[in-house]
Amino acid sequence: MIVSPPAEIGMPLAEVDTPALLLDLDAFERNLTRLADRAKRMGVRLRPHAKTHKSPVIARRQMALGAVGVCCQKVSEAEALVQGGVADVLVSNEIAGARKCARLAALAREARIAVCVDDVAHIEALSAASVAYGVTIDVLVEINVGGNRCGVEPGAPALALAEGIAKAPGLRFRGLQAYHGSAQHIADFAKRRDAAASAAAKARETRDLLARHGHDCADIEGAGTGTYAFEGTSGVYNELQVGSYIFMDAHYARNLDENGRPVSDFEHSLFVYATVMSKPARDRAAVDAGKKALAMDSGMPTFADLRDIEYTAASDEHGNLKLGETNRPLVIGDKIRLIPGHCDPTVNLYDWYVGYRGDRVEALWPIARGPGY
Amino acid sequence: MIVSPPAEIGMPLAEVDTPALLLDLDAFERNLTRLADRAKRMGVRLRPHAKTHKSPVIARRQMALGAVGVCCQKVSEAEALVQGGVADVLVSNEIAGARKCARLAALAREARIAVCVDDVAHIEALSAASVAYGVTIDVLVEINVGGNRCGVEPGAPALALAEGIAKAPGLRFRGLQAYHGSAQHIADFAKRRDAAASAAAKARETRDLLARHGHDCADIEGAGTGTYAFEGTSGVYNELQVGSYIFMDAHYARNLDENGRPVSDFEHSLFVYATVMSKPARDRAAVDAGKKALAMDSGMPTFADLRDIEYTAASDEHGNLKLGETNRPLVIGDKIRLIPGHCDPTVNLYDWYVGYRGDRVEALWPIARGPGY
Repeated sequence: MIVSPPAEIGMPLAEVDTPALLLDLDAFERNLTRLADRAKRMGVRLRPHAKTHKSPVIARRQMALGAVGVCCQKVSEAEALVQGGVADVLVSNEIAGARKCARLAALAREARIAVCVDDVAHIEALSAASVAYGVTIDVLVEINVGGNRCGVEPGAPALALAEGIAKAPGLRFRGLQAYHGSAQHIADFAKRRDAAASAAAKARETRDLLARHGHDCADIEGAGTGTYAFEGTSGVYNELQVGSYIFMDAHYARNLDENGRPVSDFEHSLFVYATVMSKPARDRAAVDAGKKALAMDSGMPTFADLRDIEYTAASDEHGNLKLGETNRPLVIGDKIRLIPGHCDPTVNLYDWYVGYRGDRVEALWPIARGPGY
Repeated sequence: MIVSPPAEIGMPLAEVDTPALLLDLDAFERNLTRLADRAKRMGVRLRPHAKTHKSPVIARRQMALGAVGVCCQKVSEAEALVQGGVADVLVSNEIAGARKCARLAALAREARIAVCVDDVAHIEALSAASVAYGVTIDVLVEINVGGNRCGVEPGAPALALAEGIAKAPGLRFRGLQAYHGSAQHIADFAKRRDAAASAAAKARETRDLLARHGHDCADIEGAGTGTYAFEGTSGVYNELQVGSYIFMDAHYARNLDENGRPVSDFEHSLFVYATVMSKPARDRAAVDAGKKALAMDSGMPTFADLRDIEYTAASDEHGNLKLGETNRPLVIGDKIRLIPGHCDPTVNLYDWYVGYRGDRVEALWPIARGPGY
């Protein structure tokens, strides 16, 4: 289905219909620049995670500021990125099935493509597809650095896979995927730092073992918005896969810095614009952004412009608001900006970014949303 | 963006790529028939909730079995339904803003359209739009029967709104919206029955008050998959807005019947098809259906074909599985059917239903997904 955007370029922000996914372009651009500068100072490469934004426009902006390419989490995302002009894409995940391998190999005719493996079955399937399409795919061995999700154990099991890749026709060994997902949202600074350090130690040990056996890792990949400063200064990781930094969300805003204060590296730039559709009591209202407009997996949204107010519950198309004294004047038709609990799956619900600067709509960017396959 | 379906008609089910939204047509059709028969026996009308399925194809199937029309939760859904041939649509919710009112009025040129209000502001905006488009819109007063979401309080406040509707040009008073959302998932049978009875008492009292003032309610609307048997036999409700019954989900399957056993009115017919993409340990695997393929707001998915297995955690594109002894032979590439925790927001993630019968794909139905606006 073709879904038209809820706004027009040049329109005042207040006229955008709701629910809509707003992007504050000034804040977004400051976030882009801030991480790019930080990576340069740390002397590491950036390969931002495009699963966050699902937008070739944003990927190209990241690369214009120095990113070497982007990563993403599945074949359909890689296709959308390459179709949108991104020439270097890593699928930072395993893929299974002959169809997906064939699509990835076909994509390697158009762009530099890399993917992760954690089993010899992946190597065999990717090699067969690469040979069939006459291409070379770069392959990273994913190691389990603490998340217990995918990835072989560090050390000898990773070496066995690297050796398998080196021998497989159509594949080229490129390095290690060592992302520690469950470390990203440890709120306490010291505990988060220690989790990242533990992951870095496993990556270092594995890198050194592989080097002793003649398999040099060109890339050691990992990091996220919660831990990038640790990986970037670890001396092990040389490519950072930070995603959420461009938008920030309410969940990441709960992380604390070394002084116990909320982290302030990046600004909220992504909002869900919602309208008050019911005001049935002095202290209650309902907005038109519920479970189909906001991902609730990491908690309720917070408010960009209002204090003394709480988003207490969601239905499919309702958000229930509890109003403190200062917000009781809210009336039906008022529009408010919500900060999503989790940006990635919220973006996935929308077809368009409505980019604005000041109080004017300036950009309408399509989103390669969907479950993909 | 145009998203092609992950299957072809006639394809063996096992070849469908993942993640995909599967619909077991036999089970789905049994659910359709079962509720239609039940409503006939109870002597009430059915107006199934199309927010669940977002599909004019399914709405027409429901009407072919006797439903008088469907309801939905927002203007964009009503548009998709009318465009797909559904001639009678109730937006069982408030709408705010001149644009949405204009779109609803324009739609009333094509179909019988009704909507809810809980404030005089809604009446004024809808009346202005109806007059501008030269149409008549049916209007129900939503009353708060216990959910504390939208709706005026029962009794006198509802009467005031009914009087306002009766006087407003372009509007016709039709009755009461008295849905008790928070009663649907009370697992205990007696408590669920009592909550529904309390809602029915409020609807009855309000209906009788309005009748004494000359405002007869043609429709008393409400009910869901958790409580429909109570509303259907209440003597008050005459139109049931049941939605999830066509699919069932893991959350509704936790409701208990009068004997303390899981309810068995309907069968699971909706599944997310997923592929094992990593098997890094004997007792762990990862599938390619995570937060962007399954709504997690009502808990984790369960398994259609496997026991002794648990979906323990989700990332954007990963579902982590904990495997009991019997499932340890699972290998990379295996496909499994997951039962979503919550069907409505899961459907909203997909562009296509892949309907199958036995082991063959038989139907590809588009989904009017999206946040709408």
